Amino acid sequence: MPEAKPAIVVALTGWKAEPWVARFRALLPGRTILTQAECGAERPARYHLFCWKPSAEVLAATPYPLLIASAGAGVDHILRAKPPAGVPISRVVDPDLTGRMVEYVVLHALMHLRRMPEAAMHQRARRWKGSPMPAAREVTVGLLGIGVLGQAAAAGLAALGFRVIGWSRTARGSLAFETHAGEAGLGPFLAQTDILVSLLPSTPETRGLIGTTVFRALHRDGAFGPPVFINAGRGDTVREDELIVALGDGTLRAASLDVFTTEPLPEASPLWGMETVILTPHNAADSTPDAVVAGAVAEIHRFEAGLPLKNLIDPKRGY
Amino acid sequence: MPEAKPAIVVALTGWKAEPWVARFRALLPGRTILTQAECGAERPARYHLFCWKPSAEVLAATPYPLLIASAGAGVDHILRAKPPAGVPISRVVDPDLTGRMVEYVVLHALMHLRRMPEAAMHQRARRWKGSPMPAAREVTVGLLGIGVLGQAAAAGLAALGFRVIGWSRTARGSLAFETHAGEAGLGPFLAQTDILVSLLPSTPETRGLIGTTVFRALHRDGAFGPPVFINAGRGDTVREDELIVALGDGTLRAASLDVFTTEPLPEASPLWGMETVILTPHNAADSTPDAVVAGAVAEIHRFEAGLPLKNLIDPKRGY
Repeated sequence: MPEAKPAIVVALTGWKAEPWVARFRALLPGRTILTQAECGAERPARYHLFCWKPSAEVLAATPYPLLIASAGAGVDHILRAKPPAGVPISRVVDPDLTGRMVEYVVLHALMHLRRMPEAAMHQRARRWKGSPMPAAREVTVGLLGIGVLGQAAAAGLAALGFRVIGWSRTARGSLAFETHAGEAGLGPFLAQTDILVSLLPSTPETRGLIGTTVFRALHRDGAFGPPVFINAGRGDTVREDELIVALGDGTLRAASLDVFTTEPLPEASPLWGMETVILTPHNAADSTPDAVVAGAVAEIHRFEAGLPLKNLIDPKRGY
Repeated sequence: MPEAKPAIVVALTGWKAEPWVARFRALLPGRTILTQAECGAERPARYHLFCWKPSAEVLAATPYPLLIASAGAGVDHILRAKPPAGVPISRVVDPDLTGRMVEYVVLHALMHLRRMPEAAMHQRARRWKGSPMPAAREVTVGLLGIGVLGQAAAAGLAALGFRVIGWSRTARGSLAFETHAGEAGLGPFLAQTDILVSLLPSTPETRGLIGTTVFRALHRDGAFGPPVFINAGRGDTVREDELIVALGDGTLRAASLDVFTTEPLPEASPLWGMETVILTPHNAADSTPDAVVAGAVAEIHRFEAGLPLKNLIDPKRGY
């Protein structure tokens, strides 16, 4: 009799486990699929861990998993809880997730281009009033983070006519748009940017990177006027107190925020009540269990066949 | 001495004349440029009329103009006021105006795909809550009107992943997307459409075309749920009372409206206060004096050189 295939343990914080478990059962028939609630501190002899925001206890339970699969594109939620050294960690890279992120970025760039927060205020006041607006081609969107998601967002923005530039921590090969890299490249990048879009992962290098200094360095004298900030990366890359000040004093005209220092965003946060802020509950790129589990299962098959993982992360780099 | 070039009379209702006059002066130096306020019922011996929503009196003043140039893409505002028979009428077809219309259509399709009216309600209630949302590729946008603007909008929507289909009054040559035509084609077109976008001009055939019958014929059982209506065409193509009923009884989930039966939209209209309606003040494709006047001047040069006009309209067809 062949050795039983490794089990799957599904450990999701803040999400219902059922639809994810159902997808694993459909794609891996006959395999043992357990939720964290069913396991507690117990673990099967051999298993893979599929997780979102796992606690340190979940990651410390022994025996360790063979493979850790993130339920999202980011893995900071895993690294923060100190995963066991040496266990490979894989993230989601999926066309469905990527497409949804492009939807989010293009939507929010257009909402600010077309002054939708102002339009909403006029509507509430029953006021027939437009604002002069530049065309997309007169506006530069600067992307912080130009990996898979950033490059797809750039193509979507360019299709609408926006000028796109990008910044990355380390220099990239040549892309279809102007790019800047590293600390030295940040100033020239920001000085041209009307709409700053962050898709940065949370890593030791990016935490707290975005604050007053960045906001003050943005372009502000063009047809677009004062700049706008869109965050679909990670909340802790931003100094949220400095963001609130910049929105209050006009350094930023407006913002779209999908991620926050603390999630859910506390009810007391002044961000909720700002008419120039468009909030969404960390669902910019919420993919479906179908798409995400299919990707995780593909990684599991590769792992079990002894093939290299497609979306292995580097814990030192943080993504 | 050569005969003086025809003058330009600028007659704009509801807009300031200055920036438009300034552009004509810049592009046609030495030519007489007059506003309607300066002329009154008087007219130069030979002139072209550049107008937006002219009154019947403006169009009846004699001598008649050599050429009538619309300040917008539509000409219903001119035809309604009974222009003198035989005077050619030209409309705006301009990449800037087209690009802005694409911005509007993609923005509002994305706002409804991503449930932004619901997100705004949650934000006002300080409620951290998302809604399940299909991806763009699971949603069909149906374009009523697939001329220059419709085809450009189709390309922008397709770049974001939406499935696009189109309908026109008379059959079109083959396009990059599925098309339907005429009365017989309307049913099959609507039955597939999740997001209905009207870019229809106002003509005797289109007036009052869109109402209860159309809204009830839309697709409603897919991943997108109840359908949405976006109007960036003309207000009088819609039975506004039936639209209000359809929004109230759930036949339509939501709408984005840029044009209305009466503009400015009266303060008493219930549309202002509907949380599922996104209103803008007929500025979906507000182009700049720069772009529009450049197009009108190009037509004037063609006319004066005896060349065919590029954007001549057919008064019988209405566009």
